[in-house]
Amino acid sequence: MNFLEERIVKDGIVKEGNVLKVDSFLNHQMDVELLDRMGKEFYERFKDKPINKILTIEASGIAIACFAAKHFGVPMVFAKKSKSVNIDGDMHVAEVESFTHKCKNQVIVSKRFLGEGDRVLIIDDFLANGCALQGLISITEGAGATVEGIGIAIEKGFQIGGRVIRNLGYHLESLAIVDDMDPATGTVKFREQMK
Amino acid sequence: MNFLEERIVKDGIVKEGNVLKVDSFLNHQMDVELLDRMGKEFYERFKDKPINKILTIEASGIAIACFAAKHFGVPMVFAKKSKSVNIDGDMHVAEVESFTHKCKNQVIVSKRFLGEGDRVLIIDDFLANGCALQGLISITEGAGATVEGIGIAIEKGFQIGGRVIRNLGYHLESLAIVDDMDPATGTVKFREQMK
Repeated sequence: MNFLEERIVKDGIVKEGNVLKVDSFLNHQMDVELLDRMGKEFYERFKDKPINKILTIEASGIAIACFAAKHFGVPMVFAKKSKSVNIDGDMHVAEVESFTHKCKNQVIVSKRFLGEGDRVLIIDDFLANGCALQGLISITEGAGATVEGIGIAIEKGFQIGGRVIRNLGYHLESLAIVDDMDPATGTVKFREQMK
Repeated sequence: MNFLEERIVKDGIVKEGNVLKVDSFLNHQMDVELLDRMGKEFYERFKDKPINKILTIEASGIAIACFAAKHFGVPMVFAKKSKSVNIDGDMHVAEVESFTHKCKNQVIVSKRFLGEGDRVLIIDDFLANGCALQGLISITEGAGATVEGIGIAIEKGFQIGGRVIRNLGYHLESLAIVDDMDPATGTVKFREQMK
């Protein structure tokens, strides 16, 4: 097990309905040392790519993306989930459906911060059915930028998102892939990944 | 001028309606080196307090709070703006009205991550009329925790928020206090602050 898998075993909570709660260290209370280590790990996995921008989506992706951006020495851009009155001018927009929140959101990135020539690493905390991620890919490619890679903290391997993204040919790295969870015993089974 | 004020002068854009756009470095595209420096500056200003937790509110507060938490070596907790299906159990709740988005939000923190004995530094990117901040203070004190200080990136000094918070006796540090802005010339006037 790697450091994130170990932490999930230690502090993650398995709930009915395929819910894995990691809110004590990843998406409500944040262990910033862990996030920094995750950022460093993404850097190690993608450092050979000519990445000049990290893209994520609010809210809990921001923290991981920040530390990744620090290790790459590049800016981070986070997509917003609804039109803010403080955003004006031309926007890249994609409509995505949230699995967690059971609603549709417009995902928005200003054209000033993502465009032709940008080589993007997309970062997010969770990948389940992949709707948010598809929105970020759509926005990146619609902007004329290149998706150099996708870094996910926790992928739910029993949902369709990861398979779809890999089938489409993207370089997707998930630090932990959960293939099975049992709310009765609280056990989590991780997919073996090649080093 | 300090490093943040200099950056605001260089890259901030003054718009009609008392809007200061800093979305190229602070709340859409993020300059993570700048954020890290802000986190370090908050550490310098509050390091004598027995702070064991950083509290902020999604979304753009998260990045600054992360780097502050890294410098303090403590966890960060971010308050959520609407009830997520992944949050269960007992919550601290406050209702806040957003100036920017012109709507009311429930602000929520799990009781597992904020409680009696916690000594909290509240961090946010903007302080205008202070509604979000009042919600965070209300949640902290309602939890039986102590507000040791409040660190803000940019305070709009011509709005009421900062004065109210200081009148209430809180130790509030804003890295930049904007006393006046002129959309016609694009100039920003900062309040002189004691070192």
